[in-house]
Amino acid sequence: MTHNFDDALALESLGDGKYRGRTSAPFNNMVGPFGGLTAALLVRAVELHPDRHGDPLTVTVNFAGPIAEGDFEISTRAVRTNRSNQHWYLELHQNGTIATTATAVFGTRRDTWDSDEAVRPDVPGPDGIDPIDFPTMIAWAANYEMRYLAGALTETEAVDSVGQVWIRDRPPRPLDFASLTSLSDTFYPRVFQRRGKYLSAGTISLTVHFFATAEDLAAQGDDFLLATAHARRFHRGYHDQTAELWSTAGTLLATGHQLVYYKD
Amino acid sequence: MTHNFDDALALESLGDGKYRGRTSAPFNNMVGPFGGLTAALLVRAVELHPDRHGDPLTVTVNFAGPIAEGDFEISTRAVRTNRSNQHWYLELHQNGTIATTATAVFGTRRDTWDSDEAVRPDVPGPDGIDPIDFPTMIAWAANYEMRYLAGALTETEAVDSVGQVWIRDRPPRPLDFASLTSLSDTFYPRVFQRRGKYLSAGTISLTVHFFATAEDLAAQGDDFLLATAHARRFHRGYHDQTAELWSTAGTLLATGHQLVYYKD
Repeated sequence: MTHNFDDALALESLGDGKYRGRTSAPFNNMVGPFGGLTAALLVRAVELHPDRHGDPLTVTVNFAGPIAEGDFEISTRAVRTNRSNQHWYLELHQNGTIATTATAVFGTRRDTWDSDEAVRPDVPGPDGIDPIDFPTMIAWAANYEMRYLAGALTETEAVDSVGQVWIRDRPPRPLDFASLTSLSDTFYPRVFQRRGKYLSAGTISLTVHFFATAEDLAAQGDDFLLATAHARRFHRGYHDQTAELWSTAGTLLATGHQLVYYKD
Repeated sequence: MTHNFDDALALESLGDGKYRGRTSAPFNNMVGPFGGLTAALLVRAVELHPDRHGDPLTVTVNFAGPIAEGDFEISTRAVRTNRSNQHWYLELHQNGTIATTATAVFGTRRDTWDSDEAVRPDVPGPDGIDPIDFPTMIAWAANYEMRYLAGALTETEAVDSVGQVWIRDRPPRPLDFASLTSLSDTFYPRVFQRRGKYLSAGTISLTVHFFATAEDLAAQGDDFLLATAHARRFHRGYHDQTAELWSTAGTLLATGHQLVYYKD
């Protein structure tokens, strides 16, 4: 038995940096696939490339158009390879149309002076909190166990956009760069929370900064992450949101910075 | 008499979405040109493109390699144009080598429910604060009037990476999207502040989210912005930093999210 996330991440190499994938019903969003999965597929495509050098440092995914159910193709190109890092340009095509573009920087790491300046919010652990189920029209959410501390969607307007949730794959799955990428996108548009309702909204652009090394991922295993999010400004059709993903032990594994369109 | 920034931004159209520029000594950094200028040039190249649709919503610039003094070429490609937004892929070439890649999303805006959720820090205005000059090896800094409230570089280690500065072009110049882009990169690497020294460090990737509309830029004019910055984690050769750029009137005009490499 395989994991839904691994099924959805499956890519077939077509040679020349091209990979074929297929949309996966368990990861559908209200319209098309969950953006976090699309971002994870792009990271995975680079990981599969035989010339790949190092681990992900950052990826920016621009959601240019809808992805229809069925096959898609990801093209990867190593634009420039330096001694310690490598720059990629990626496109997701479907029937000759570009649906998604991305850039990624992969690289190797070295021992340096380090500092965990930001501190994880001091919140209760996940054990005493009931998991929340999303409406079934948001199929992908069933692949995550989410225990909300703040920002669970209600039908009333919220005074702020702050979200805090203990989250992990359901069923649990050891954390890797692809799943960390996907987890960075699991906060619904902050405008839903502020307005207390679903409305037409979606991520236009997602930038993930990776702090985690392979050792950090192994240390985390399949335990809960603490994910936090907030938006700064909702202005004439677009708002931002920044997510922080913290390990169970309290270190920052990744951040996700989004630009989201909305109609309201 | 023209402004240094306009001189440095000058691009000659070569047709087919290609533009030729030239490095500008007043915008040199310790090694190569100031990254904020490079980001601004990429935004400007799209602005000059006859097919450009709307204003900048977000740009991600990946600094893949050094730019040598002299001519360079920017290639722009509208990957996909939708009704309300347009997705771009950009490269900066020099002598056949790719030095910089970028993606950008431009778009039009609509009237919506809006909210300024984040609030500008409550700090004294710029009038009573002495401007700071950077060492002459950081030539570009002379193009900015910087009045530091917090985080001016000293030779002692700082307990945090927080920076706060009133900043504008020197001499003053009406704000536009290109200069807003450049301003988002005017914080030196936060590791300098933490360590109280210059060391080998540089931006790998810069993502700017634009909240400002053309009307917001016109309202700001050439007055001081309040820029704030902080880093979350310094870990095995890379740290992040997030900058917020606030108008004189207190609205958020843009954010910049960076990944910075360092050796220490």
